[in-house]
Amino acid sequence: MSTVRVYDIITKTRDGLELSREEIRFLIDGYTAGRIPDYQMAAWCMAVYFRGLSPEATAELTMAMVNSGEVLSWPELGDELVDKHSTGGVGDKTTLVLLPWVAAAGVKIAKMSGRGLGHTGGTIDKLSSIPGFRVDLNRAEFVQAVEEAGLAVVGQTGNLVPADKKLYALRDVTATVDSIPLIASSIMSKKIAAGASRIVLDVKTGSGAFMEDLDKARLLAETMVDIGVKTGRRTTALVTNMDQPLGHAVGNALEVREAIATLQGKGPEDLTELCLALGAEMLIQADKVRTPEEGRRLLLEVMEQNLPIEKFRRMIAAQGGDARVIEKPELLPQAPVCLEVHATRSGYVTHIATKTIGLIAMELGAGRQRIEDDIDLSAGLEVFVKVGDKVEVGQLTARVYGPSQDAVENAAAKLKEAIQIGESPAQPLPLVLARVSR
Amino acid sequence: MSTVRVYDIITKTRDGLELSREEIRFLIDGYTAGRIPDYQMAAWCMAVYFRGLSPEATAELTMAMVNSGEVLSWPELGDELVDKHSTGGVGDKTTLVLLPWVAAAGVKIAKMSGRGLGHTGGTIDKLSSIPGFRVDLNRAEFVQAVEEAGLAVVGQTGNLVPADKKLYALRDVTATVDSIPLIASSIMSKKIAAGASRIVLDVKTGSGAFMEDLDKARLLAETMVDIGVKTGRRTTALVTNMDQPLGHAVGNALEVREAIATLQGKGPEDLTELCLALGAEMLIQADKVRTPEEGRRLLLEVMEQNLPIEKFRRMIAAQGGDARVIEKPELLPQAPVCLEVHATRSGYVTHIATKTIGLIAMELGAGRQRIEDDIDLSAGLEVFVKVGDKVEVGQLTARVYGPSQDAVENAAAKLKEAIQIGESPAQPLPLVLARVSR
Repeated sequence: MSTVRVYDIITKTRDGLELSREEIRFLIDGYTAGRIPDYQMAAWCMAVYFRGLSPEATAELTMAMVNSGEVLSWPELGDELVDKHSTGGVGDKTTLVLLPWVAAAGVKIAKMSGRGLGHTGGTIDKLSSIPGFRVDLNRAEFVQAVEEAGLAVVGQTGNLVPADKKLYALRDVTATVDSIPLIASSIMSKKIAAGASRIVLDVKTGSGAFMEDLDKARLLAETMVDIGVKTGRRTTALVTNMDQPLGHAVGNALEVREAIATLQGKGPEDLTELCLALGAEMLIQADKVRTPEEGRRLLLEVMEQNLPIEKFRRMIAAQGGDARVIEKPELLPQAPVCLEVHATRSGYVTHIATKTIGLIAMELGAGRQRIEDDIDLSAGLEVFVKVGDKVEVGQLTARVYGPSQDAVENAAAKLKEAIQIGESPAQPLPLVLARVSR
Repeated sequence: MSTVRVYDIITKTRDGLELSREEIRFLIDGYTAGRIPDYQMAAWCMAVYFRGLSPEATAELTMAMVNSGEVLSWPELGDELVDKHSTGGVGDKTTLVLLPWVAAAGVKIAKMSGRGLGHTGGTIDKLSSIPGFRVDLNRAEFVQAVEEAGLAVVGQTGNLVPADKKLYALRDVTATVDSIPLIASSIMSKKIAAGASRIVLDVKTGSGAFMEDLDKARLLAETMVDIGVKTGRRTTALVTNMDQPLGHAVGNALEVREAIATLQGKGPEDLTELCLALGAEMLIQADKVRTPEEGRRLLLEVMEQNLPIEKFRRMIAAQGGDARVIEKPELLPQAPVCLEVHATRSGYVTHIATKTIGLIAMELGAGRQRIEDDIDLSAGLEVFVKVGDKVEVGQLTARVYGPSQDAVENAAAKLKEAIQIGESPAQPLPLVLARVSR
């Protein structure tokens, strides 16, 4: 029927020419259905790597991917759901804190989340460390949990965006992952297919993020917000710092523990601050407030009334978990061995090798290298210092939790190297680097 | 055994980093053996398209391809064989004239040649139009023919450069054909695998050539000469004009007829001139002369003695062909219908759409679109004017030969459009645009 040819699509992309909606749909539908071979798609991805895609083509690509599989909608929940996505960081337990907090301010939350891969953790893994907590609710259970508790978080199910699964697997072995339009359309297609119509994005940048460079992170944020605008989904993005772990804890049960403290108003300053910034954006998206300032005020108000931790308690209960972990964190999985790390000199923390810290935690068992790997929910580490802090020789800087003495000693040695202490005071790092909205 | 990974090779190429000999061999050996999948190779080719390859890597790639299959050598023939290669043009019957002429000057010639594809013809097809001529000699017959006649030309056989066959087929469907290092290594690997140690290249540029742009043609010539230097094969390249058909005839039997006339000293000026230029280079490569001027002089001398056409006669006889075609060209296949084309206005020839002329000849049956297509050896056309010529209204400008009245009328109408006549005198086109040697 059509005169569209894959060869011409590759050539046009290679030469920086505009692709039509018809061409992009032909490409994605054909690839998903197996009519277009991997080798042509690989050549196309590499051409996109070098030439990019126009904003229009990027939005068309996103919607072509969305339409490659099931597309969820939630009329039972009033449909206009607010979703949040982080591009992934070390110690990023934001979702655990943010969702109950925003729900406590009166926004209905129905979130689908993923498992972690590589040096950053996944929300579903973290929640799995709460005894009894079920992340595999079916649709009816999920909707009921949202109605009962005001929020629910489950693992992603169903055949959402099969084009992305296939394309990502191909990009992963052809050195074409690192392309802004391909990353942006991959993320946004999954949010849109899951039924989100209002989206807040946390784009991480720095040594612990996939997007190490600030300019590229900003471009990714702009590209995703632009996809949102072009596809009729309200989207706001914050570009935030990942040059040091967020909060102190890195590792599943350890992060749940820190999230609980933060939901009680006793968490690390940076984590609390980031949740306020992202939470205010979610409240704007949900039409609860009009400005970020109003949003912060409302969030601080509900915190004063102890509502966030109560919301979290209800969520745990509604999903079958043991809510006593809030008062008794020792009910969470606990590592057999713990080792303290102390500063070997006095001075100022000048740099924290954040990706290395993520990798140390992964090696301890807290993360997985391949999707089929098992993880150790109790393993991980805590880093108590931030860049710019003054430290004294002998001061406790970190703790390592692992399955054996060997494992924690090995990790502690590497961790010492990852936390650099110098003589001159270093500037504390700013947390929110940019806000992208339209 | 090796820690080389395809993924890293793609990444390094994508980022413009140098590949080692080990990496290039790993890639080509793995691809030829089927261990490396098409999709990774396609991504690599597109990365090369954008980033290029260093001269060292290009030479390594060439030798890795050479070593992917059989490598011929010709100790029976004294080993230091001079080969000639053209990148392909419209009406390019140079090989038919050049080889007997150079052989007449005392250089032993043993040439393997290919069939034509697309809008440019192949030497083997042209020779096949001589009744009885065998292009499928086995090794013993080939060597005997060379010793008997001083030269022989056969079709390529054996498993030469399987890596190139596989890689070219992939490039052809992934829009990665048009890459200088990939083109250069493809051509040179085939010459080297066929046993050539001294090589003269005719790199065509202009509207009838694959490489339309002069700068790119020059770069291709330089790249191939550099491969020659780096792999120990004496190589010289001429960059020559293909902005109009070479000589007059386009089509297999018609070109043999024109080659015969040229070997008798009665050929078109441009064809004769190009054979002198390329022939002189071959004589230098064969250590017969030291300069292009000496080479020309020797070639003109043997022409005065009528040696070239006698050499051609002996070659035809040694390969089983009917050498009477020299005196009786009507023994060659003749088209049933012929139509003359006349100028519709007076003026000067300002432009000849050369690729179009190649395509008209192909449509008449003279060329093949796919490798499995049959061709009509009698079909084709003759263009009697050159850019810069003054023409009068009604003057004979071309003849078309084809299987039917419809076919030739259709071709003649297109041919009229392809030969542009304007009011202002146009500059005649230079023939040899550059010489690349080291």
